Amino acid sequence: MTKVDLNFVEGLTLEERADLVSGTDFWFTAKVSGMDPMLMTDGPSGLRKQVNVHSAMDQSIEAVCFPCSALTASSFDDQMLEKLGEQLGTAARAEKIGVLLGPGVNIKRSPLAGRNFEYFSEDPLLAGRMGTAYVKGVQSTGVGVSVKHFATNNREDQRFTNSSDVDERTLREIYLAQFERIVKQAHPATIMCSYNKLNGVQVSQNQRLLTNILRDEWGYQGLVMSDWGAVVDHTAAIKAGLDLEMPGKGDASKEEIIQAVKEGRLQESTLNRSALRVLEMAERYGHPKTPAPAYDMETQHEFARQLADDSIVLLKNENQELPLSDSAKLAVIGELAQKPRFEGGGSSHVNAHRVVTPKKAMPAHAVYAQGYRLDSDQADEQLTKAAMELAKNSDQVVFFAGFPEAMESEGFDKHSISLPANQNKLLEQLLTVNPHVVVVLQNGSAVEMPWEPKTPAIVETYLAGEAVGEATWDILSGQVNPSGKLSETFPKRLADNPTYPTFGKDRRHEVYREGILMGYRYYDAKQLAVRFPFGHGLSYTTFAYQNLTISENSDDVTVSFDLENTGSQAGKEVAQVYVANHASQTIMPIDELRDFVKVELQPGETKHLTLKLSRRAFAWYNSETETWEADNGQYEILVGSSSRDIRLRQEFELTIGTNPLGKITGETYVGELMENADERIKQIIAEMGLTATFDKFMSPELAPIFANIPLRSLTMADIDAETVHELLQKLNELD
Amino acid sequence: MTKVDLNFVEGLTLEERADLVSGTDFWFTAKVSGMDPMLMTDGPSGLRKQVNVHSAMDQSIEAVCFPCSALTASSFDDQMLEKLGEQLGTAARAEKIGVLLGPGVNIKRSPLAGRNFEYFSEDPLLAGRMGTAYVKGVQSTGVGVSVKHFATNNREDQRFTNSSDVDERTLREIYLAQFERIVKQAHPATIMCSYNKLNGVQVSQNQRLLTNILRDEWGYQGLVMSDWGAVVDHTAAIKAGLDLEMPGKGDASKEEIIQAVKEGRLQESTLNRSALRVLEMAERYGHPKTPAPAYDMETQHEFARQLADDSIVLLKNENQELPLSDSAKLAVIGELAQKPRFEGGGSSHVNAHRVVTPKKAMPAHAVYAQGYRLDSDQADEQLTKAAMELAKNSDQVVFFAGFPEAMESEGFDKHSISLPANQNKLLEQLLTVNPHVVVVLQNGSAVEMPWEPKTPAIVETYLAGEAVGEATWDILSGQVNPSGKLSETFPKRLADNPTYPTFGKDRRHEVYREGILMGYRYYDAKQLAVRFPFGHGLSYTTFAYQNLTISENSDDVTVSFDLENTGSQAGKEVAQVYVANHASQTIMPIDELRDFVKVELQPGETKHLTLKLSRRAFAWYNSETETWEADNGQYEILVGSSSRDIRLRQEFELTIGTNPLGKITGETYVGELMENADERIKQIIAEMGLTATFDKFMSPELAPIFANIPLRSLTMADIDAETVHELLQKLNELD
Repeated sequence: MTKVDLNFVEGLTLEERADLVSGTDFWFTAKVSGMDPMLMTDGPSGLRKQVNVHSAMDQSIEAVCFPCSALTASSFDDQMLEKLGEQLGTAARAEKIGVLLGPGVNIKRSPLAGRNFEYFSEDPLLAGRMGTAYVKGVQSTGVGVSVKHFATNNREDQRFTNSSDVDERTLREIYLAQFERIVKQAHPATIMCSYNKLNGVQVSQNQRLLTNILRDEWGYQGLVMSDWGAVVDHTAAIKAGLDLEMPGKGDASKEEIIQAVKEGRLQESTLNRSALRVLEMAERYGHPKTPAPAYDMETQHEFARQLADDSIVLLKNENQELPLSDSAKLAVIGELAQKPRFEGGGSSHVNAHRVVTPKKAMPAHAVYAQGYRLDSDQADEQLTKAAMELAKNSDQVVFFAGFPEAMESEGFDKHSISLPANQNKLLEQLLTVNPHVVVVLQNGSAVEMPWEPKTPAIVETYLAGEAVGEATWDILSGQVNPSGKLSETFPKRLADNPTYPTFGKDRRHEVYREGILMGYRYYDAKQLAVRFPFGHGLSYTTFAYQNLTISENSDDVTVSFDLENTGSQAGKEVAQVYVANHASQTIMPIDELRDFVKVELQPGETKHLTLKLSRRAFAWYNSETETWEADNGQYEILVGSSSRDIRLRQEFELTIGTNPLGKITGETYVGELMENADERIKQIIAEMGLTATFDKFMSPELAPIFANIPLRSLTMADIDAETVHELLQKLNELD
Repeated sequence: MTKVDLNFVEGLTLEERADLVSGTDFWFTAKVSGMDPMLMTDGPSGLRKQVNVHSAMDQSIEAVCFPCSALTASSFDDQMLEKLGEQLGTAARAEKIGVLLGPGVNIKRSPLAGRNFEYFSEDPLLAGRMGTAYVKGVQSTGVGVSVKHFATNNREDQRFTNSSDVDERTLREIYLAQFERIVKQAHPATIMCSYNKLNGVQVSQNQRLLTNILRDEWGYQGLVMSDWGAVVDHTAAIKAGLDLEMPGKGDASKEEIIQAVKEGRLQESTLNRSALRVLEMAERYGHPKTPAPAYDMETQHEFARQLADDSIVLLKNENQELPLSDSAKLAVIGELAQKPRFEGGGSSHVNAHRVVTPKKAMPAHAVYAQGYRLDSDQADEQLTKAAMELAKNSDQVVFFAGFPEAMESEGFDKHSISLPANQNKLLEQLLTVNPHVVVVLQNGSAVEMPWEPKTPAIVETYLAGEAVGEATWDILSGQVNPSGKLSETFPKRLADNPTYPTFGKDRRHEVYREGILMGYRYYDAKQLAVRFPFGHGLSYTTFAYQNLTISENSDDVTVSFDLENTGSQAGKEVAQVYVANHASQTIMPIDELRDFVKVELQPGETKHLTLKLSRRAFAWYNSETETWEADNGQYEILVGSSSRDIRLRQEFELTIGTNPLGKITGETYVGELMENADERIKQIIAEMGLTATFDKFMSPELAPIFANIPLRSLTMADIDAETVHELLQKLNELD
């Protein structure tokens, strides 16, 4: 076998090397000097291997369709995500796929973003944990991943040209943190750069992102490929750190590289670096060392069902409306029960193996009515009448509602998060004749629910994959106890979202004005009521939290507590740990998710849980010093069942960080100096005969103004310039 | 008399010139070569001429205290503001004051900002109009002004060192626009630079602001002085465009300039420029050509009353609770009736000539009870009991509420906009025994009113000046028909303000994240209910708006309509014109105030009003091209009685601006191209045999994705690179 190394690459002709850094077509790397091309295919939620290279987007081989990432993230279950990765990797091995193009780990900034269904969360810790587990799972089978879309591809409209304008701290804390975690912990084979610009620079040509941050800071060793069509200037892209342009532009791609080298615009060593990475990838993932494991679609279908079971979120359940009563007369209403939305549109679309619709899976005694048409948002008189009639004569109604496929896909953004008018209208009407309407939602991202207060029970299934029907009834019937938690906030109104007034409104720039205060960080900071908060999800059993203890170690902080199943059936709970920073003198969210654990408990069982929070869990990114800064001082640890259902909380003082108080300068304020004055400071003030003066400044009458004067401006307070100068010199000598 | 010109300055010694560019003390310019020093004093709302240079801040000569700017802006009355300026100028002349340090025209960004009472508005047009009128009035008497605080001094905490971080468009449209108007239309003698940094650069050393924008762009000819103590590096400041450091630091000030010149760090010509400006100012305003006019404090007191009458805002008046009934048994409750807050703290504090308290001015038959203590926020049992007793036995209650002085002053920011707990509590209690409680507010800026829904009438008097008592009863009794309008939004909760999560939270940076969407621009964009909207204010009569017509001229747009007094008494209305921009492809507020006019009408009288909107009224600041851009396209003109009480609205198309659609490039999207495709474009597409392809792209099934692909990326859509290149070349040749 050929040994792929720099020597080998240097031995290739310029044409061959130029050939390597673009795809041969939509899906294959180039075939040069006897090295086989490698196949990659779409599909975070299932393989989208096209029947042939020029097939239309919807012509792909049969594959199991797993739940979309919006749903799998709601599992908060690292182990299940790892298993999902294993299943996908196994299928990819069987199909001789080298690299699977996923997972998508971008942050959900606006509920309007067209691709939210493909992404995990509004929170970078959750997105990073889910992504890490998924990548480990896929790569454990010998298949590579492409973690996408790096970075800040948070809007679809004008996605090829729009610039995401993000301040550095927000970029690091919110939009890059999940990539950083995945790169450092799961070592993905490839990263896919996004279409957009970042702070004005095309991401495919963004050296700061693709090289300085990704490789120099994070130590990334893999390959960077472009999103399909994201390369504008291929030479500039290679220089910036892109390795592989996808797809290739045919001979034009090769020619421009050859020309650039010949004209001295591209160094051969730079080209060789990328060509080598392409060959290494093709070698490693195109020729796995182990034989492909057994692969059975029905087994994977069963896993798709279990994953959905573990992820579906019970949003509301008043008076134990759910599980459904076995003996009740049951109506199932809504065309989505018959034609479910179970997967997203665009590159993640799968030619599903075996779709089980909710209608097909419903109990034998249930009666179905279509209720509304999915291809219209107008009410249909006949359908309405039949549905109303059925609802009137039933004990309970399960109403299937959701976004039709035309409303939500890769490639464009939504303009509303309301359900189609005919669905909202019918639901309101049904509630007038039968209060026992359980709403089951199928949608890719947050939805407005004006009817929520009148509805006794709501189940969020997102796009649940091909086992949608089985999983939905598992939850509704109580065969499975729900344990999913929202990975995004559901606001009361779209207008409540911080990006609402500006999202998508400027053709050329998307300014991330809300900064770090997005998602629940925003709703909490604005004290806004929401429909359902981040981390929220109910169970058919109940859990009690007790005995929180916090202790600081030399390098981390241990948080432990007891979790008890206080109900009468087995169930799983996602215990969430949030940290509130009261130490740092900068903008901080009220609190932030810093760890979570999913635990299964039998009735009456208690587990003692211990989590470790690293220094990073207390850190913010200081863009002036370009460091992660964990400030010593007061913090609070909050443990709860959702971001707004905190069960235990305790203050503690961090001492293993750094001191947030800097050196005394002319910009130090009188108030700050005096509040922190130690004996040495007091002595200097006394020696200079200024004790009475400073005491006066800090008197209740004068302090409001004089405490707010910096030392350098004390001439304003009748201290002469020489004295101010001398005082500052002496104070400066202290440290 | 000495001729002050550059020759004269060049004839002075270096010591003399160095002496001139700092104040001799707190209030005087330097005396050199027989030139007299000039006196300046504080006081936008009345003279604060200290008894002597080293007096404490509260030891100033007797002067008439006019209403604070928060109230005068509520007049929306250019003529009254000009008269106010004349009154202040007259008083200054009598006191031999050369320059009066005001007006303060900063924008109210957060209701917490400690100095809001001294500023006009959250809207730059209103602040600019009020400031222009005021400056014209003062300067018509031969006294100069100092327009302050230039710029973005919108927070008091850490005001000497904090950096206001503002994007360029927001800076131009919101935070500089009022200064620009005043400079261009009123030619103020001096501008006072602010304490803070702007985008990291100390304002006193900010060449871009003090020279490039102020002088080069706006053509400013006057002097720039520092706020008191705002100079950090005097040499750097002079180079940046500062002329006069205030106050001086004694000999140290002179020495550092001499040293800088000797060491070549400061060019003599730069020093001379500033020294000349100081001398010109002292010459012109220290030696007015006309004798001081007659000056009578009682006449000015009467004007202070009229100005308050014209400005006080009737916020709510359910069931004609007001004017008060003559025959009713009337209770007056609240210590603020006896010890009113009628002026702000800090540099605007006046030693008032003759304060008439509301208690002193109340009708003879009214009975007073203190109700609460101003020096505490705890309820007082005795006072509560007496007030409740009185309220029970009265027909109507006037309750005086407001912020105590300790809560609100220059020098520090508030942490809440709630009334003290004892006031809120007593008010709620009074409402349980008497529903006819009229609330009169005394406060420097917006206040939360949780009790508003239960209260039949609310009158906002802000800090009404020394005639506070007379003016308050003028409105309550109906002797004056109220005509004030809010110059700021009163939100339901402080947390509704866009700056709430971040204001004052970072010691070193105040980031203006909300951008142009602040004040009513934010509340409207977020579709938020507010307590009282910008521009709101009731009258005892009613007005009807009719017959809106809009016509475009070669250089402006004429808006005209009829305004009729449809009630039974004379009254004044502030007709407000807002513009909604639907043309520009960038972030735009829902609408913005672009003109207003205050009109007095007799019962039954109709006036036909005609206003001219210049191109600038349709323009936004494009920071990439550094120009004000009025885009051709659809606009809507809205005319109303408040920002949320629009009575007339009409669409129209602007054609005298510029075309917002640019040249076709590789970044032009398929959808944009086809939506705007003229015959020439269609022909090029046809010639290249691409008509069917583009038609397919725009088909209902494919358009959601393909319309969102830019021309340069059409290789993604199976068009080869050469064809894409050729197509772009041909389209580019079109223009």
